[in-house]
Amino acid sequence: MKVEFINPFIESVHKLFTTMLGCEAKRADAKLTRVSDNPRQITALIGLSGTARGTVALSFPMETAVAMANRLLGADNTVSDDSVSDAVGELVNIVAGGAKAMFCTESSVPIDLSLPNVIRGERHTVEFPSDAMWLDVPFTSDLGPFNLRVAFEMNGRKRRDN
Amino acid sequence: MKVEFINPFIESVHKLFTTMLGCEAKRADAKLTRVSDNPRQITALIGLSGTARGTVALSFPMETAVAMANRLLGADNTVSDDSVSDAVGELVNIVAGGAKAMFCTESSVPIDLSLPNVIRGERHTVEFPSDAMWLDVPFTSDLGPFNLRVAFEMNGRKRRDN
Repeated sequence: MKVEFINPFIESVHKLFTTMLGCEAKRADAKLTRVSDNPRQITALIGLSGTARGTVALSFPMETAVAMANRLLGADNTVSDDSVSDAVGELVNIVAGGAKAMFCTESSVPIDLSLPNVIRGERHTVEFPSDAMWLDVPFTSDLGPFNLRVAFEMNGRKRRDN
Repeated sequence: MKVEFINPFIESVHKLFTTMLGCEAKRADAKLTRVSDNPRQITALIGLSGTARGTVALSFPMETAVAMANRLLGADNTVSDDSVSDAVGELVNIVAGGAKAMFCTESSVPIDLSLPNVIRGERHTVEFPSDAMWLDVPFTSDLGPFNLRVAFEMNGRKRRDN
């Protein structure tokens, strides 16, 4: 995986914050990791397929997820668990969709998105098989810290999928 | 989601067991659920995209995952954590790939697969946004119990993904 593939996803996170959440997100340096080794309480992920196969994930402490859900929904009070799941699922869908549009325009790499899944659980981890890596980008924001994680392979190696 | 969409995935699980794991898997009745409400310790999932968007997941108690990894790898002893993750990721890839082939042949519903992800954590849950449901099929086998979970939407409703 080339490091520059992360850029459309980072740009998409910044755009999400400035246009829909009304604040800014600041990123730290990206690092390669095989497992989500900074466990969070809630992870929203969405699969990528087509020319590039992989996953985009946003991982949050619960406080960040609730704050982002409240901001996205324009709610003043703590939203329900269902609303938080819907909101973080929609956030990863927006980030992946924005990056998809940039990939299709800039580099002619067509990618398709699956539906978002939301993982909950204290200290859950999300892994890839051992021949793939996450690019992990920590962010801070007025709504709290979170991590963007992206992994994909180009032109799919041969797998036993038929 | 139509219940008959689950059938290629069930058939693919049966084929995986008889051809690669050397034993049989017996299924119980499928039920609709919004959350993986029978928490397992390890879940392998893979995204579906194209005409149909969704997710296929296999959820295991750790004992079943280790037994299936040992059988798949031909190992006598307990395999490493990495090998278990690789094995269950490969299992969901095989199940989804087999079903994909049946969909393409039987109903001209082209679907693409993302890369598998493996979730670990005591009592983790895997959810969809509230407008989607899992079809959950419990299985028993000589290697232990596990669950097949499938959810997808046909012809994607309009989302904010561009």
